[in-house]
Amino acid sequence: MREVHAIIRHWMSESGIESRVDAAGNLIGRLSANAPSISAQLPIRRVLMIGSHLDTVPNAGAFDGILGVMIGLAVAESFNERSLPFAIDVVGFSEEEGVRYAQPYLGSRAIAGTFDSTWLDRVDEAGIPMKTAILEFGLDPEKISAAAIQPQTIIGFIETHIEQGPVLERLGKPVGVVTSIVGQSRLVVCFEGEAGHAGTMPMFPRRDALVTAARWIQQVKQTGCSIEGLRATVGRVQVSPNASNVIPAYVELSLDVRHPSDAVRIKAVEDLVDAATGFAIEDDLRFTVLQRSDSPSVAVSPRLESLLAECVESKGIEVVRLPSGAGHDAVVMGQCFPMSMLFIRHPKGISHHPDEYVDVEDVGVAIEVLIEFVERLASQDLTTA
Amino acid sequence: MREVHAIIRHWMSESGIESRVDAAGNLIGRLSANAPSISAQLPIRRVLMIGSHLDTVPNAGAFDGILGVMIGLAVAESFNERSLPFAIDVVGFSEEEGVRYAQPYLGSRAIAGTFDSTWLDRVDEAGIPMKTAILEFGLDPEKISAAAIQPQTIIGFIETHIEQGPVLERLGKPVGVVTSIVGQSRLVVCFEGEAGHAGTMPMFPRRDALVTAARWIQQVKQTGCSIEGLRATVGRVQVSPNASNVIPAYVELSLDVRHPSDAVRIKAVEDLVDAATGFAIEDDLRFTVLQRSDSPSVAVSPRLESLLAECVESKGIEVVRLPSGAGHDAVVMGQCFPMSMLFIRHPKGISHHPDEYVDVEDVGVAIEVLIEFVERLASQDLTTA
Repeated sequence: MREVHAIIRHWMSESGIESRVDAAGNLIGRLSANAPSISAQLPIRRVLMIGSHLDTVPNAGAFDGILGVMIGLAVAESFNERSLPFAIDVVGFSEEEGVRYAQPYLGSRAIAGTFDSTWLDRVDEAGIPMKTAILEFGLDPEKISAAAIQPQTIIGFIETHIEQGPVLERLGKPVGVVTSIVGQSRLVVCFEGEAGHAGTMPMFPRRDALVTAARWIQQVKQTGCSIEGLRATVGRVQVSPNASNVIPAYVELSLDVRHPSDAVRIKAVEDLVDAATGFAIEDDLRFTVLQRSDSPSVAVSPRLESLLAECVESKGIEVVRLPSGAGHDAVVMGQCFPMSMLFIRHPKGISHHPDEYVDVEDVGVAIEVLIEFVERLASQDLTTA
Repeated sequence: MREVHAIIRHWMSESGIESRVDAAGNLIGRLSANAPSISAQLPIRRVLMIGSHLDTVPNAGAFDGILGVMIGLAVAESFNERSLPFAIDVVGFSEEEGVRYAQPYLGSRAIAGTFDSTWLDRVDEAGIPMKTAILEFGLDPEKISAAAIQPQTIIGFIETHIEQGPVLERLGKPVGVVTSIVGQSRLVVCFEGEAGHAGTMPMFPRRDALVTAARWIQQVKQTGCSIEGLRATVGRVQVSPNASNVIPAYVELSLDVRHPSDAVRIKAVEDLVDAATGFAIEDDLRFTVLQRSDSPSVAVSPRLESLLAECVESKGIEVVRLPSGAGHDAVVMGQCFPMSMLFIRHPKGISHHPDEYVDVEDVGVAIEVLIEFVERLASQDLTTA
């Protein structure tokens, strides 16, 4: 990360962008408002933030996160000799993925003022506490709260990111405007029956937890397909005792349900839990929900979204509006600042892998759209924002 | 095993039963034919073998195997002052479970003459070859073939064993007559689809290997229930990547199919493979059979079976005839000698566990039935056997 910071800060300084690393390890490059007469009239809402995260996962691709920072830098560079009534902050967040401490969004949470200081005592796999890692990086964990940015100073936050999904590819569009970041329910559920010898136990009195789990997996698929925009996935299965000649006694399954509407998502989860309970009663098994978490959907700023859509249209591109099914720093930023996201087509659909791919032409489109966005924003009366 | 041998040999000698340990570690106690005038007329078929195995699994119960040896001893003891035209060999087989060398039936295979000498080079988890273990026990691995018994000397082999299934318990009968030992097909099959992000990939173009696997698990259950006497079980499931937020790309499943009729079993397996292939085509997945093994069913001797059934009836017990869904030393013995099996009710259905249980009254019934069996056999003209 030190090397990445050094490279990007060098590029920033070449473009007249002044950079700093904040108390949470976020890299922030500022292109100052260079129309002082206008910005003097605007003590509030005078910074537009554009960015994404600089960290990634092991064995990763080259685009997830850092592409959004590079696009922000390209946009800011294009204004370095032009007059703007607001500053542009190009933000490269630290620790979005949560690889080391199993806690995502550390950098953006610090900026949004929602960093939980108890996380500092978490240890990584080598037993090193987060606060020690921060000290070793050269920052003071006691000062993380200083990274928080006052919401009233910010016009908005724009994140560009590869879609990590097939929608734009299928529609043949280079970019798309994000309408919301979907809410997510995660459950771990369990069917408990009775083990038995696969040879000696007749079929009829069996209480095979896997057979009932299979009914429910089918139901999850059906429910997912029956509601527009719903995603319902069983991704993880643990069978016990998991031996070829033993009737499964116990099956534990993950359920992941997402939808832009929290009400639709919560209803779908309720229906699936009801279905599981019903199947368990019919098949004489026990059904339990072992864990559950719910994250509400995050809205984008309607004003920034419609401005972004206008900019896409102005480039002769039909506007595709789509929700983000995955989480991003924009989730955290959107809870504190007006937020909007632009997705870039993701041709092979492979992410978190060296084969992660994006067309350079599509990146060009995204940069043009954001330059247009900054120009239009600059021409508006920001005091009404 | 040395301690068990010492205890049982002491009991045998107290009952006038002469014991030996054969070259494969089987304990054999012989109650000699004590009606020499009759046995002299019968150079062939002059030994009835009764027994089961003395080994067991780690953390085992008290009955699986050894109960059948103890019942054999009780039956032989009851004839130690009575005239019989044949000898009774009480057999305690070595190594039925195959725990140490992953090869079951070592003792019975040596007696049946089907021990494969290449097994001697197999190593256990500590790297100790089987031949070294045999030497350390005090036997000569080179002489295992000497344990083989000539088929023409044997009237038959009778094994009593806990049912390890629920049939007798449900019918309220203390014992049951085994009609055959079922054949078994084992397969490992695989559905291969495509991984994807559980949040960003819409439901419709998904190629979720788990959803298709779930369809097939349902089909296995349905096929199992649709054919009398069939057992069809998916016991083991491996999902990859098996993460809650990733659409399953790859699911590997075990299939265990058993039926007394080899033709019915093979047809059922074919139907299930066809169904899997059909589901895979419909759902745009790849389907492959990774491994497959088939063991044919083993017949019991019709003459010994009907004699055993008559003896059960003579005790005022309605005769329950049932196949054995599990393998026993009787599988191996039945390939070389006339074989019959008597099952004992297994009230709690728990086996290979300290809670393994059997009613002492049911053991009494089994002993009475076998004593009757020996008496009726002694009264028959054995030359026509």
